[in-house]
Amino acid sequence: MYKKVLAYKKHTVINDPIYGFISIPRENIFQVINHPYFQRLRRISQLGLTQYVYPGARHSRFEHALGATHLMGLSLNSLRSKGIEITEEEYNATQLAILLHDVGHGPFSHTLEHSLVEGVHHEHISTIIMNELNKEFDGALDCTIKIFEDKHPKKFLHQLVSSQLDMDRMDYLNRDSFYTGVSEGIVNYDRIINKLNVHNNELVVEYKGLYSVEKFITARRLMYWQVYLHKTTLGVDQIIIKILKRAKELALAGENLQATPFLSYFLSQKIELEFFENNKEALEHFTKLDDHDIVAAIKSWTVHKDKVLSMLCNFLINRKLFKVELSEHQKTEEELVEIRKTSMQKLNVSNSEIDYFVTHGKVSNHAYNDKDDTIKVIFANKELKEVSLSSDLLTISAMAKKVDKYFVCYPK
Amino acid sequence: MYKKVLAYKKHTVINDPIYGFISIPRENIFQVINHPYFQRLRRISQLGLTQYVYPGARHSRFEHALGATHLMGLSLNSLRSKGIEITEEEYNATQLAILLHDVGHGPFSHTLEHSLVEGVHHEHISTIIMNELNKEFDGALDCTIKIFEDKHPKKFLHQLVSSQLDMDRMDYLNRDSFYTGVSEGIVNYDRIINKLNVHNNELVVEYKGLYSVEKFITARRLMYWQVYLHKTTLGVDQIIIKILKRAKELALAGENLQATPFLSYFLSQKIELEFFENNKEALEHFTKLDDHDIVAAIKSWTVHKDKVLSMLCNFLINRKLFKVELSEHQKTEEELVEIRKTSMQKLNVSNSEIDYFVTHGKVSNHAYNDKDDTIKVIFANKELKEVSLSSDLLTISAMAKKVDKYFVCYPK
Amino acid sequence: MYKKVLAYKKHTVINDPIYGFISIPRENIFQVINHPYFQRLRRISQLGLTQYVYPGARHSRFEHALGATHLMGLSLNSLRSKGIEITEEEYNATQLAILLHDVGHGPFSHTLEHSLVEGVHHEHISTIIMNELNKEFDGALDCTIKIFEDKHPKKFLHQLVSSQLDMDRMDYLNRDSFYTGVSEGIVNYDRIINKLNVHNNELVVEYKGLYSVEKFITARRLMYWQVYLHKTTLGVDQIIIKILKRAKELALAGENLQATPFLSYFLSQKIELEFFENNKEALEHFTKLDDHDIVAAIKSWTVHKDKVLSMLCNFLINRKLFKVELSEHQKTEEELVEIRKTSMQKLNVSNSEIDYFVTHGKVSNHAYNDKDDTIKVIFANKELKEVSLSSDLLTISAMAKKVDKYFVCYPK
Amino acid sequence: MYKKVLAYKKHTVINDPIYGFISIPRENIFQVINHPYFQRLRRISQLGLTQYVYPGARHSRFEHALGATHLMGLSLNSLRSKGIEITEEEYNATQLAILLHDVGHGPFSHTLEHSLVEGVHHEHISTIIMNELNKEFDGALDCTIKIFEDKHPKKFLHQLVSSQLDMDRMDYLNRDSFYTGVSEGIVNYDRIINKLNVHNNELVVEYKGLYSVEKFITARRLMYWQVYLHKTTLGVDQIIIKILKRAKELALAGENLQATPFLSYFLSQKIELEFFENNKEALEHFTKLDDHDIVAAIKSWTVHKDKVLSMLCNFLINRKLFKVELSEHQKTEEELVEIRKTSMQKLNVSNSEIDYFVTHGKVSNHAYNDKDDTIKVIFANKELKEVSLSSDLLTISAMAKKVDKYFVCYPK
Repeated sequence: MYKKVLAYKKHTVINDPIYGFISIPRENIFQVINHPYFQRLRRISQLGLTQYVYPGARHSRFEHALGATHLMGLSLNSLRSKGIEITEEEYNATQLAILLHDVGHGPFSHTLEHSLVEGVHHEHISTIIMNELNKEFDGALDCTIKIFEDKHPKKFLHQLVSSQLDMDRMDYLNRDSFYTGVSEGIVNYDRIINKLNVHNNELVVEYKGLYSVEKFITARRLMYWQVYLHKTTLGVDQIIIKILKRAKELALAGENLQATPFLSYFLSQKIELEFFENNKEALEHFTKLDDHDIVAAIKSWTVHKDKVLSMLCNFLINRKLFKVELSEHQKTEEELVEIRKTSMQKLNVSNSEIDYFVTHGKVSNHAYNDKDDTIKVIFANKELKEVSLSSDLLTISAMAKKVDKYFVCYPK
Repeated sequence: MYKKVLAYKKHTVINDPIYGFISIPRENIFQVINHPYFQRLRRISQLGLTQYVYPGARHSRFEHALGATHLMGLSLNSLRSKGIEITEEEYNATQLAILLHDVGHGPFSHTLEHSLVEGVHHEHISTIIMNELNKEFDGALDCTIKIFEDKHPKKFLHQLVSSQLDMDRMDYLNRDSFYTGVSEGIVNYDRIINKLNVHNNELVVEYKGLYSVEKFITARRLMYWQVYLHKTTLGVDQIIIKILKRAKELALAGENLQATPFLSYFLSQKIELEFFENNKEALEHFTKLDDHDIVAAIKSWTVHKDKVLSMLCNFLINRKLFKVELSEHQKTEEELVEIRKTSMQKLNVSNSEIDYFVTHGKVSNHAYNDKDDTIKVIFANKELKEVSLSSDLLTISAMAKKVDKYFVCYPK
Repeated sequence: MYKKVLAYKKHTVINDPIYGFISIPRENIFQVINHPYFQRLRRISQLGLTQYVYPGARHSRFEHALGATHLMGLSLNSLRSKGIEITEEEYNATQLAILLHDVGHGPFSHTLEHSLVEGVHHEHISTIIMNELNKEFDGALDCTIKIFEDKHPKKFLHQLVSSQLDMDRMDYLNRDSFYTGVSEGIVNYDRIINKLNVHNNELVVEYKGLYSVEKFITARRLMYWQVYLHKTTLGVDQIIIKILKRAKELALAGENLQATPFLSYFLSQKIELEFFENNKEALEHFTKLDDHDIVAAIKSWTVHKDKVLSMLCNFLINRKLFKVELSEHQKTEEELVEIRKTSMQKLNVSNSEIDYFVTHGKVSNHAYNDKDDTIKVIFANKELKEVSLSSDLLTISAMAKKVDKYFVCYPK
Repeated sequence: MYKKVLAYKKHTVINDPIYGFISIPRENIFQVINHPYFQRLRRISQLGLTQYVYPGARHSRFEHALGATHLMGLSLNSLRSKGIEITEEEYNATQLAILLHDVGHGPFSHTLEHSLVEGVHHEHISTIIMNELNKEFDGALDCTIKIFEDKHPKKFLHQLVSSQLDMDRMDYLNRDSFYTGVSEGIVNYDRIINKLNVHNNELVVEYKGLYSVEKFITARRLMYWQVYLHKTTLGVDQIIIKILKRAKELALAGENLQATPFLSYFLSQKIELEFFENNKEALEHFTKLDDHDIVAAIKSWTVHKDKVLSMLCNFLINRKLFKVELSEHQKTEEELVEIRKTSMQKLNVSNSEIDYFVTHGKVSNHAYNDKDDTIKVIFANKELKEVSLSSDLLTISAMAKKVDKYFVCYPK
């Protein structure tokens, strides 16, 4: 039915605060944009509750997907202008693949990936949804799915969708930088895209783009520390995770919990991968779930009679956040015991409850992986080198090292 | 209790994508920012569902209030630098007045102003909330409330908070322009603020700022047509209004409607001004209501058994929008009858139901009012003139005329 | 010879601070860009000595020409996407026409238009130079010249080059706004270009672009007052004009004046239109003349023995500017006599010399001409209306009135 | 005399395209800005002929000095807000020190540093000029000079003017990035300035600013390769240097060379440090020399009878640039001999002349020096660490290594 209610015209132009006018030129792209599965992304924030730290960071996966699709068009044009053959069908399919790469994200994006649907990665759900759409559109997404799953012979098309120099990263670094106001994340996408090329069926970047790639990797590294792994954000994420954990436990124990039907579905039963794949109903509920179900429920639960649940919900809604320590060193077991003890007194909760309030874990920042699926640089003499070996300094090599940090969150 | 959980330090710096680093320097401003009443504004979008037209327009009243507070600081500094006496208390109070000017906004801002709470203007609720806060803070907002209500002897302080050249407009034009990508709304706030002055206790703008004010009024006019009164937005607003109308009717008729307790409170009874003012419970529920309650409920109602309600909710959530005609001329009664008839057939609804789907009305764009509370320009010779009389052309006079347009919305 | 020394490659990308990466895709455009005639524009500032008021305004005609060529490409693409037929040759020729539209500008652009070469408008010289280039390039500019001179059957191509909605204005408003920091001049070129169309062989703008055009005309009006006719700039221009006038008089009287050979040529003889057209030598010297000849000469003349000349040159170089009064009213003859008298005493110069220091005149701001070559708006029903009649208010009509102001400059 | 012709008022606001409105609040700063010594900086481009690569890069030392002065104000405010005592006199003097730090630059900034005045570094001339100004202003610059020469007891004031984290770098990275359009140079100055502090009388940066400093050093490294040491720019610089070398040789040999009196002075005699210091006349001529003298002379010399000189001048003016190879490896002597031979044939010049056309040399990029005058980070526990040791990775350490590259330029 939605096919008849296309919201955009043939040559649609969408205002994007970052790129200006984005032109979406192909008919079946709009049909996908207008599908409820994709419109749902309007209601899923790109960065969860990062707005608790950076108030402007309220953008959605919808915008990100459109932006990445725009950059994909620029990249495909750039490659074509260098004589790389890309058919109309491939062009279109590659744009659709990036448009849909995040369509399987659940509410609060990464935060809840493993709490509502256990052991199911969002990319897996994206594939399931693409296949559903493909049925609806009579196979129009065949090529798209091949590219997304890296089964298309032109490997570089997949690399534009998913690799260490893909349009996903290119857009999200710029976009997250724009909305947070953290200028360290600005990426010279214009220049990088202009220097993309294909060699032996693989995506490569020309030597003249080397410094922009170095900057791109630096941007990724710094955005991780300053935004994605910002300690306040980590603390907020922990609260949401614990709320959903407690709520699901209560629901499974038969407790009544106000929630939308879509959220109730996931609270009231264990849902694992096999179930999800074989159960059309699960997908139907999942594709109606978004941030609003979670926040509205949490607000309702601020007055729930379960003390742990209502305390956590109040903390979150009124932004009474945990204290978070982020360090290169792990806390000792003794230190953790001490923190738990103090917190139990402070909150007046029992030993069995304190783990909802005191949490610890590890985060990793790995700006660039120089082992797998590396970024290749092509020199004027057609020589090919992995990017960290192409630089005149060890800067990129340095960033190829994974940095682990340890966090502990507890009530202030 | 929240007083003890201040999230910001003494000299807090907040990243704003528009102004860069905003410094919030005064202690009791943070206590107010951290109060649940103010934190709620994080969950109220500045422009409702304008994101259906301009995907980037997802900013909240929270950001706007902080931005306006920042501009207020700049303006007060500018006036002080010209010898206008402003005490520390007044400085602080004026910043608080602009910080809180929108604290009474309900979900979806203007859209629902009159559907949940009948006949109660959001500024009225802002005052009620300020008084509540004043009690909690032991009178610390006395001066703020005086300024907000225009009872402070320094009238120009009120004018900075609320007038045709106030910090509210200065911020929202810039902010809405930034997030929508509609560059017509950009305002040279730097220059205008630099040219502000006080004459006979009234806010005036120096002659050298005249052209920036002309641009400011032009920006307001164009933002109304391109954003605030954009016909697609008008159509979306109508759907939300009709949904809430239907839901409230059903609820009052005893129908069961899933909703958070905060929304249920307002659906299940008529609430008018007097009731609201005299009923602490009403305020308590109101200050917990935000966009999520509305959207989550609408999503739940997509599967409600009432056909009118579920149809409207599906239209909204899946962005199957109404066709909207916006014109200088009103439709004739015959034309409206015809539209209703066609729509009834298209949707298969009855005569008594069609008014939920076909609506019409009038919108007005009045960029500048040259009659009341006008903008005054002060010339080098200390002469004072109303701004439309100060210009070398009739441009501002032209914009002082109110333009009415008539819209009709009906199913596509 | 220059043909062999192409500085740019086939697909050249130039960094522009405003539009990002500009791609110049056509071979013979680079040959023209690399011609000394065009390279000279690097040394001609777009806004003369406006940098005395706005320090950032140091951009050149070279950048402006490239920017306008970029916008021309966008416009031609936009029209083509709507089915307007534009051949490759026409596309290329139209880009070349805008690239070269200012190639006849002399040093300090408009300021010196009539002092070095009397009665010769820069567009006239542009045509002469285009014809010269056409000879060198064996007729490759035939179509370009037809478009530039409005002799091409597709009139709309000329209108893109020269009309009230041409790429010249579109670029200079944005560019001058960017470098001066005067945000009133920002123009939504993206949107306007997207809404361009052709009707009956004439350039028109679709109704949906109406508000952006209103903003465009407002931007032009405000940039005139705030930048182009800024009173300090007027005063600076007067000093330069008087310096060249005095210098030429001295040179014609046989006085020795240090200058480059290119400037000397124009100082030592009267050069009028007919002479210029029939004298290859005149063109050769003109095409080597730029801002540096003028400034270096003025610096040398700061120590010239002619007192009037050296005073003026010192004023200019050390930025000891005239006082400038700009008013809606003309000074009376008595007032001017008084000003001259006071100034003679102040500077200790004679009656015959004072006119080099006290000058007066008229400037006009005519943001939009609603009589000739007007901007046409096309409505959804294919109706065509002149833009000021298309608006819902008299704003554009108001700006169609020419505003005259009178200035007088005299020593401080 | 200039003291009476102050161009700016008491509270002057200058439009800067980067920072918006810059407010210059202190009386004697304007007197210095209006002095001919400082006004000369308007005519000295910040980046020489970098506009041959990046057309927008036409900004002047004047703008840079104002920008750095603005940032200095922000930094001093930031430090004061943390309780660091800075008297009004020190505040003012530090702003003046950064305002004047580049006042000794000659035309084309670094390019000609050693060709016109041998063995005299621009900072040395800055000191000489500051002392001159100090005499004129009756000692008002005493404190400024102490700070500039690092003789003031508050060492951190000098470090704000000149160190690896000074306001000079902070402004030029941002400014050069802005005008070239090379986004890799963008620096989060807001954040860094906000995190500055003083410890044991030394400038330090708080831990929370660490990532912004890492980005700052990365920006510097990348701007060196992409802008300051861009190979086309290197080639252009070599041409200018050779032109001046040849011209001076010809002038010393008694050849007549058209030039302004200020340039002639430096061409017609050898001028070394001692001479310069003891000769008021040398300073007088130097402070009147700017880019225009050089360019106008070069243009005149395009028709000079000396073939080497005129060829070089034609190459420069018409942008017929050298081919430049930039490599990690030095050319062998044989390779250079071969290049010289081929070039001699190509240009038809003799063995003694070829060195004006074929040049080679070394450039170094040293983004951060971890040995001298290092950047210190202060942690929450008051521990102090050098910045490269503070990072969680070896990125800054990597950038502390100096990279040498070798260039050779020869005719295309």
